[in-house]
Amino acid sequence: MSANVPALRLRAVRIDTDSENVAYLARGCTACRVDVLRAAQKVAVSVAGAAPDAEPMLAVLNVVDDSSIVGPDELGLSEQAFAMLGVPAGTLLTIGPAARPASLDTVRRKLQGEPLDLASMRAIARDIAARRYARSEIAAFLVACGREDLERDEVLALTRAMLETGERLDWREPLVADKHCIGGIPGNRTSMIIVPIVAAHGMLIPKTSSRAITSPAGTADTMQVLAEVELAPARLHEIVLRERGCIAWGGTARLAPLDDLLISVERPLALDSPGLMVASILSKKLAAGSTRLLLDIPVGPSAKVRSLADAQRLRKTFEHVGRALGLHVEVTVTDGTQPIGRGIGPVLEARDVMAVLESRPDAPQDLRAKSLRLAGRILEFDPDVRGGDGEGLARDILESGRAAAKMASIIDAQGRRLQPPGPGRLVAEIVAPRAGRVVGFDHLRLARAARQAGAPASPGAGLDLLVRLGDAVRAGQPLYRLHAETSGEFDLARRGCDADAGIAIA
Amino acid sequence: MSANVPALRLRAVRIDTDSENVAYLARGCTACRVDVLRAAQKVAVSVAGAAPDAEPMLAVLNVVDDSSIVGPDELGLSEQAFAMLGVPAGTLLTIGPAARPASLDTVRRKLQGEPLDLASMRAIARDIAARRYARSEIAAFLVACGREDLERDEVLALTRAMLETGERLDWREPLVADKHCIGGIPGNRTSMIIVPIVAAHGMLIPKTSSRAITSPAGTADTMQVLAEVELAPARLHEIVLRERGCIAWGGTARLAPLDDLLISVERPLALDSPGLMVASILSKKLAAGSTRLLLDIPVGPSAKVRSLADAQRLRKTFEHVGRALGLHVEVTVTDGTQPIGRGIGPVLEARDVMAVLESRPDAPQDLRAKSLRLAGRILEFDPDVRGGDGEGLARDILESGRAAAKMASIIDAQGRRLQPPGPGRLVAEIVAPRAGRVVGFDHLRLARAARQAGAPASPGAGLDLLVRLGDAVRAGQPLYRLHAETSGEFDLARRGCDADAGIAIA
Repeated sequence: MSANVPALRLRAVRIDTDSENVAYLARGCTACRVDVLRAAQKVAVSVAGAAPDAEPMLAVLNVVDDSSIVGPDELGLSEQAFAMLGVPAGTLLTIGPAARPASLDTVRRKLQGEPLDLASMRAIARDIAARRYARSEIAAFLVACGREDLERDEVLALTRAMLETGERLDWREPLVADKHCIGGIPGNRTSMIIVPIVAAHGMLIPKTSSRAITSPAGTADTMQVLAEVELAPARLHEIVLRERGCIAWGGTARLAPLDDLLISVERPLALDSPGLMVASILSKKLAAGSTRLLLDIPVGPSAKVRSLADAQRLRKTFEHVGRALGLHVEVTVTDGTQPIGRGIGPVLEARDVMAVLESRPDAPQDLRAKSLRLAGRILEFDPDVRGGDGEGLARDILESGRAAAKMASIIDAQGRRLQPPGPGRLVAEIVAPRAGRVVGFDHLRLARAARQAGAPASPGAGLDLLVRLGDAVRAGQPLYRLHAETSGEFDLARRGCDADAGIAIA
Repeated sequence: MSANVPALRLRAVRIDTDSENVAYLARGCTACRVDVLRAAQKVAVSVAGAAPDAEPMLAVLNVVDDSSIVGPDELGLSEQAFAMLGVPAGTLLTIGPAARPASLDTVRRKLQGEPLDLASMRAIARDIAARRYARSEIAAFLVACGREDLERDEVLALTRAMLETGERLDWREPLVADKHCIGGIPGNRTSMIIVPIVAAHGMLIPKTSSRAITSPAGTADTMQVLAEVELAPARLHEIVLRERGCIAWGGTARLAPLDDLLISVERPLALDSPGLMVASILSKKLAAGSTRLLLDIPVGPSAKVRSLADAQRLRKTFEHVGRALGLHVEVTVTDGTQPIGRGIGPVLEARDVMAVLESRPDAPQDLRAKSLRLAGRILEFDPDVRGGDGEGLARDILESGRAAAKMASIIDAQGRRLQPPGPGRLVAEIVAPRAGRVVGFDHLRLARAARQAGAPASPGAGLDLLVRLGDAVRAGQPLYRLHAETSGEFDLARRGCDADAGIAIA
């Protein structure tokens, strides 16, 4: 395709373009018609003299009008593309319009309603992992999968295909426990209590978590209030083997890179596809080397899953795909009608977690009870723990102080934060507009308020809840305290809460 | 949102990022946490001290590791973003994570099957035109529109919304004729014959065309063999007023910029949505100031429209939307069972066009007949031409040499190419594998072969057809000649044609 094009010299352009390969070409390029290439949107880059059947690397074309970035006889590649091509600067390259990846035809057929088999999913996953898809093409694939959700076996095929594109950890132990919540409930920071309990028992639980994107805090953001969470893979490995657990950010391990890429495209679209969610969660857990997973599905009127019937359907898909790929998934359907714990936002949630671990009298009892119940289920993965004994054992570990000691030891191993931030110093009380009873929590509204207040980027920002479902309140009684660190965010969040507090009184 | 962030100095980064705004931030940026911004994918850029309700500009974040591109206290913007922000380099800016455009919720509801009204279409169009959507988000919108095609009134709303985001030409004449073919038929270069006939009659026909993206030649590519087609708007205007017509590339006029953007995202996805096609074509024609449009819908087994029923449905949508927006659309359904003319590829098609205009004995009669029929329909837009007289009048104009003279004059006005390229010098005959009758043409296969041979980037590349539907052929008889300019493309195309010539013999 590019046989008629003279060669260009490779130059590294030190721009990190994240999930997209970018090729930089001078507008006055001596070797090709930039306008023709631009119309094709993606260009195919080959090492000059490579075998004719060698697959070229695809990249998005940016046209440069600054000769200090690329000269007319140069082809610049972004950091990702340069690393992927894997040849030194100065190498002679040829360039041409990119052919459409063949697997896009499969995506098109899926858009027309045809189911995808394993071979198709593999071809799509391979092309996406090799950066042959533009982000718009990935979006079309995700929408195609999301519209009339995937069949169970399509979810299995996708999970398998995603898993095959990345690395897999092997802990060389028969039992590697993991815990995951599908999310959507403010607060609910149980992992940071469960991990120290389970690790204190001696069971391996290498928990990696995400940062918040649409929520006011992810487990990684909350843990970061107390300790470092960005740990190089080798160090993480060493900590886990010594402590039997960790609470770290999953991004540095580069497990399931395809999942990260799909999520980054899917998230702004808010597609909300159960099939994609199952494939995403299970591919990540399998890549992390987990063998038994406790999966929390909260159900409630403003939760991700709104009925028990939906929760049961989702559960079957998790179990089906997990079984086929060698991961035992145990699903627990929990109450998602109200936030768990009092704090919403990294600092406030970390405070709740530490209050439970240290058995302080003011610890939120709902967070404590749920964490003990889930930890108990995980402890029963241990063949030596009798069925029904898990929760009692978890309580013993917590009340004896062993969980708090384990948490301190994990924090020290990961790198204790010596001056942890406090709650945001700008504080407003959001009050009940009338007397009545608390009858409902709007999780999305509360999350949005905490984000407007600055969470998670401002770790001290967020909400501190003062009421629970069923509480009687009088008009003017505070429902929650709003914390922020800057006046702009404070005013924005306060105006939003004054308009709609997110708590229904009837 | 960005109130807690110290200001950065604006720097112009001379990289043309096409349809996407890109913000360049040094990894060691002194003013913000690059990792938090990166997770949000898009950043919101505001001029420091701007009114708090001023809408920030959104841009995709690229992280720079080269201080000669941006320093730690600078924010670089790509050419498009810099122009859109419209403030001088050195201006103090603040930056924060971008809020999700509100109209994305409408897209999400459309994905769930809700129809879109005019207000929703307007909000989406405005956000896309203001570059608030990532390309992946535009793809989700297009897929949502394409899946279970748009209702007629949704098409109308989309067309109106697209039209409102761009400029509109006003020719200050009551009758501005236009002609368009929905495409998909190789060859079929009728516009280059129709325009000089109609302009010679004195009717205004300012024809702007696209370049080929998926086909081996667009009208702009073919005209470019003979004349310049990239004309600045002022010059184009002057040519049209003097010559009564033009055959130019539409890209420089920047009409319907939203349509260009949607097409650039849609094309690789090959969505094939009639509603999107109608909105795209009509918004462009309305922006170009046309008042009467002749629309060619070819029907055939390998054409874009495969049945008369589909063609009729499409016709009604064109008529409905056109009428509501003040464009009279006349639809003609034509034979799309085989290519029109002999050449496929810019040089070979231009040769056919000139042979018809100059009434040479070897001129392809099918191209001549179709062009006269369509030109006749357009001439009847003139109230002084009696119904049924148009085609005869077109023939007179052609046979008298007035059309050829008008074409020469348009070519001179646009800028005659003094040394037009010839057909590709590498030639292979593709022969019938067995004796029989020609019973079908696979348009996609033929187009692909011509593109593999190098069209349109190599203008002389392409196919020269030697048989028509119904012809008897003997085994080994040439079906077409393949032309290419480089041996790599020649070999690739020839191998493809040997495997599947794209012409069925039975």
